Amino acid sequence: MNAIQPAINHHIPTTRRLSRRVRAQQDIIFEAYRSSKGSNPATRLAQSLTHMLHLQIESIHTQKTITQSNLSSILEDKSNTPISSPKEDISNKWEEIHGSNDWDTLLDPLHPCLRRELIKYGEFAQATYDAFDFDPYSEYCGSCRYNRNKLFEKLGLTRHGYNVTKYIYATSQIDLPQWLEKSQVAETWSTHSNWMGFVGVSDDEESKRIGRRDIVVSWRGTVSASEWYEDFQRNLERFGHGDAKVEEGFLSIYTTKFKSSRYNKSSASEQVMKEIDRLINLYKKRGEQQVSLTITGHSLGGALALLNAYEAAATFVNLPVSVISFAAPRVGNSDFKDELHELGVKTLRVVVKQDVVPWTPGMVFNEKLQSFDEITKGLEWVYTHAGVELRLDARSSPYLKKGLQLQGHHMLETYLHLLDGFQSSKLPFREDAIRDIALVNKECDLLINELRIPPRWYQVANKGLLQNDHGRWVKPKRDPQHIPSPTTDSVFL
Amino acid sequence: MNAIQPAINHHIPTTRRLSRRVRAQQDIIFEAYRSSKGSNPATRLAQSLTHMLHLQIESIHTQKTITQSNLSSILEDKSNTPISSPKEDISNKWEEIHGSNDWDTLLDPLHPCLRRELIKYGEFAQATYDAFDFDPYSEYCGSCRYNRNKLFEKLGLTRHGYNVTKYIYATSQIDLPQWLEKSQVAETWSTHSNWMGFVGVSDDEESKRIGRRDIVVSWRGTVSASEWYEDFQRNLERFGHGDAKVEEGFLSIYTTKFKSSRYNKSSASEQVMKEIDRLINLYKKRGEQQVSLTITGHSLGGALALLNAYEAAATFVNLPVSVISFAAPRVGNSDFKDELHELGVKTLRVVVKQDVVPWTPGMVFNEKLQSFDEITKGLEWVYTHAGVELRLDARSSPYLKKGLQLQGHHMLETYLHLLDGFQSSKLPFREDAIRDIALVNKECDLLINELRIPPRWYQVANKGLLQNDHGRWVKPKRDPQHIPSPTTDSVFL
Repeated sequence: MNAIQPAINHHIPTTRRLSRRVRAQQDIIFEAYRSSKGSNPATRLAQSLTHMLHLQIESIHTQKTITQSNLSSILEDKSNTPISSPKEDISNKWEEIHGSNDWDTLLDPLHPCLRRELIKYGEFAQATYDAFDFDPYSEYCGSCRYNRNKLFEKLGLTRHGYNVTKYIYATSQIDLPQWLEKSQVAETWSTHSNWMGFVGVSDDEESKRIGRRDIVVSWRGTVSASEWYEDFQRNLERFGHGDAKVEEGFLSIYTTKFKSSRYNKSSASEQVMKEIDRLINLYKKRGEQQVSLTITGHSLGGALALLNAYEAAATFVNLPVSVISFAAPRVGNSDFKDELHELGVKTLRVVVKQDVVPWTPGMVFNEKLQSFDEITKGLEWVYTHAGVELRLDARSSPYLKKGLQLQGHHMLETYLHLLDGFQSSKLPFREDAIRDIALVNKECDLLINELRIPPRWYQVANKGLLQNDHGRWVKPKRDPQHIPSPTTDSVFL
Repeated sequence: MNAIQPAINHHIPTTRRLSRRVRAQQDIIFEAYRSSKGSNPATRLAQSLTHMLHLQIESIHTQKTITQSNLSSILEDKSNTPISSPKEDISNKWEEIHGSNDWDTLLDPLHPCLRRELIKYGEFAQATYDAFDFDPYSEYCGSCRYNRNKLFEKLGLTRHGYNVTKYIYATSQIDLPQWLEKSQVAETWSTHSNWMGFVGVSDDEESKRIGRRDIVVSWRGTVSASEWYEDFQRNLERFGHGDAKVEEGFLSIYTTKFKSSRYNKSSASEQVMKEIDRLINLYKKRGEQQVSLTITGHSLGGALALLNAYEAAATFVNLPVSVISFAAPRVGNSDFKDELHELGVKTLRVVVKQDVVPWTPGMVFNEKLQSFDEITKGLEWVYTHAGVELRLDARSSPYLKKGLQLQGHHMLETYLHLLDGFQSSKLPFREDAIRDIALVNKECDLLINELRIPPRWYQVANKGLLQNDHGRWVKPKRDPQHIPSPTTDSVFL
C-alpha cells in the first residue's frame, strides 16, 4: 500500500494527513494564478487546465474511495476531526478572492482559499435562518432569537472573527398577506416587520489575515409562504436612475418604510446603507486604507443582496463590492445586469444544478406538501441573472440521496456541503471535506439513511416549553437581553 | 363579591382555596355511597341525584366562570399550583373504587377519589408512550428509552408510589408488515419485538394509603401504522376454553412467541402472567392479605388489557381484577364479554364521545394525512364492548378546539384532561381541575390558540444529536444502563 494512501477505517483522521498536501496544492494553483495575472485569458486557461490535470491525477492516487459500504466509517472517522480548516494568510491575494478578476481561474478547480471564504459567507447567511424565531406562539415571532452581540457566540461562529454591528429589519408595502400572519399572539414585538439580516465587520485579527477590513451584510432568505408570495409579483419596477428594472416584490421588501413603525421608520435599504456609511467613515478616520464590502444571502436573501450591492456601489465610489449569493433567483432585467457590471459589482452566484429556485422568481415552497409549486407558467422571461456562476452538482456527493429532492436541493446547508466537497467540474467529491455532514439534514431529509442522521433535526427541546417547580410545562419569557429593540439593535462600535 | 368566590386574575391560586370545599364534597358523596351500600339501586340513584343537585347548585355559586377572554389568565394562575391532589387515605373504600360494585354511584357525578385513581392508571398508560423510542435511526427503536428502575423517575411519576418490576415485550406471528419496519439500522436490539408495557407494584406507603398491595399492568397502545395494521384483521379467534372469541390481531400480539427470539422466547401473555404469579406469591409469603390486580391501557393497549384480565381472572381465583381502559376498541364477541363478567373482571372503559376508535377495531390512523381511515365498512359487527362506560365529552372543555379533531380526540392526554375536568354529565368542566393543560398538546394540536401552547411539543432537542468537542453533531450512544436486556429487564424485587 502506498505510504500516503490512508487505509479505510484508519483511526488517524484523514483530514489531518492530507492537509499538507492540500496546502501544497493551494500554493501551486495560486502561484499559477498570480503569475498569469498579466497574461491573456487563453494562457490562463491553459495554465489552469494543467493544474487541474495535476490535481486530478494526484487526487486519483491519494483519495480514499467513498463507497456505500464505508460511508458510516468515514463519517465516524470525520467525527473526530476539526470543522475548520487552518487559517491561512490571504492578505496578499484578497482582491482576487474577493472577485477583482471575476474569480477567473479560481473556480474550476476551486481554489481552497476561495472555498474557505465562500463557506464563511455562506455560514453568515445560514445564521439568519438558524437564529430566526419561527415560533408562531412566541410574541417575538419574526425576530432574531439573540441580541446581535451574542449571535455568533450562540451559533458557534465566533471562529470567523467578525462582529455584528447592526440588525436589519424589513417590511413591505405591497398589499399581500401580511408578514407574521401566522403569529397567534395579539401583542407582538412588531406586527409588520421581520428581522431580515445583519451588518457585521471583521475584527482586527481577521482583518490582518484577509488583508483588509471587511464589512459583511447578510440577508435572510425566504421563511414563510407569505414572504414567498412576494415573489409572485410579475412586474418589474424601475430601480436607480437608468433603465434598470427589478422584480417589484424584492424591491418592496428592500425599500418599504412606515412612519408609524417601530422597526421600519427607515427601510431595510436605508438601515443598511447608513450602517455601511458609518463603518466606512469609522475606518477611514482610523486611517485604514483597505475596506471591502461583501454582501451575502440565500434564495430571497440573494436577491436582496444584489439590490443592496447595486445601491452600495453607486453610492460608495472605489469601495470594492462583492456579492456571494446562494440559490438566488433572477432579480432584474438586462439593464440591471449591465449597470451592476458598470458599477464594478462582482457577483458570484453559487447554484446547485438540481435546485429549481435560481431559474425563476416564481417558485413557491409549499410547506404542507413539502414541494415547490410553479406559478409562473406562461410568463415571458425578462429577468436576467448577473455575475459569475459556480455550479454544483448534487449528484457529486456520495452522502446525498439521489433523485428529485426539491426541498433538500434548495437548502443552504446543502449548498455549503456541496461547496465543501467541490474540487472541480471534473473531479469527484473531496473526500477530505471537513464540514459536518450532519448539518445537511438540519431542515430537510437529504442524507442517505446509512448515515443515520435524523431528518429535520434542528429543533428546540419541547418547542421551548420548560417544566416549572410545580411540574407544569410553561413557556418561559424571553431573556430580556435577547428581546428586540429598535435602539439597542444597532449600537455604535 | 362573595367571600369564597375568587376574583379573576387573583394571585392566590384558586385550586388551593377550593380544595377544602372539594374535600368536603368528597366526604358527602362517599358517605352517601357507603350508607347506601345495602339499599336498592333506586334508593342509591335518588341519593346520588340529590348529591349531584347539591353539587350543581354549589358549583354555580362558587365556580369561576371560564370564558375565552380569561383563559390565559386562568392558565397563568394554574401555572403556580401543584399538579397532584393531596393524597387521601382510601384504604377503607378501595374495593368500591377498584370496581367491586361496578362503580355504581361513583361515576356520575364522578367521585374525586376515583378520579384520582383513574388518572394515576392513565398516567401509567401514558408512560408507555412517553418512554417509547420512536426514532427509526436509533438501534434501539421500539424499546423503552429507560431501564425499568428509572422509568418513573425520568417521567416524573415517582409521586404515585409504584415500582416497575418487569418490562413486557411482544411480537406477532401474523404475516403482516413487520414491526419496526421503519428502523433504518441494520444491527438493532431486536428485529421483531417491541416494548409493550410493564408490570409494577405499589410500594409500602402507597399500599397503606390504598388499602392493599396493587399490582399494575400497563399496556402500550398503537404506535406505528404497521401495528395498527394488526387491527385490520376481521377474524375472531377462539380464546380460552369456551365460546369466547377475540379479534385475531390483538390475540396474536398477546400470545406470539418465537424460540429463536431474544425478547419473545415467551409471549407477552406468558411474561406478564409469570410476573403476576411471582408477585402474588411474594406477597402471600409475606403474609399480606390484600392484593389486587389493575390492568390499564390506551387504544390497542386497552384491548390487550382485556385479554390479560381474562387470563388472569381465570388463573388466579379470588384475585380482584380490574381493567381501566382508555379509548379501547371492541375486542371480542358476546361470549367473551359474558365470560369476563362470570370471571368477575371489572372493566371501566373511559371513552371520549368524539373519538372514533372505541367504536370499531378497524380504524387506522394515517400518519401522513393526520386522519383516521375506516377500513371496516360493510363488516357485520360481532365485536362487543365489555364493562362499564365512563363517557367524556370533548366539548365540555373550554380549553379545546371545537369541531372535528380526529387525532386529538383519540390521544390519551386528551382523555386525562377531560377526566380531570369531569364532574358529572350535567355539570360543566371543573374549573379547579389540576392537571397541566399543556400536556394535551404533547402530540397533537387540540388546545385553543389563545393558550399559546405549541402543537406537538413533546420533542427531544435536535432529535438527540449532540455537538462534540470538535463542533460536530453526533448521535451519542445510549447510556449503557438504559440499553434493553432480556435478563435485567426483569429483576426480582
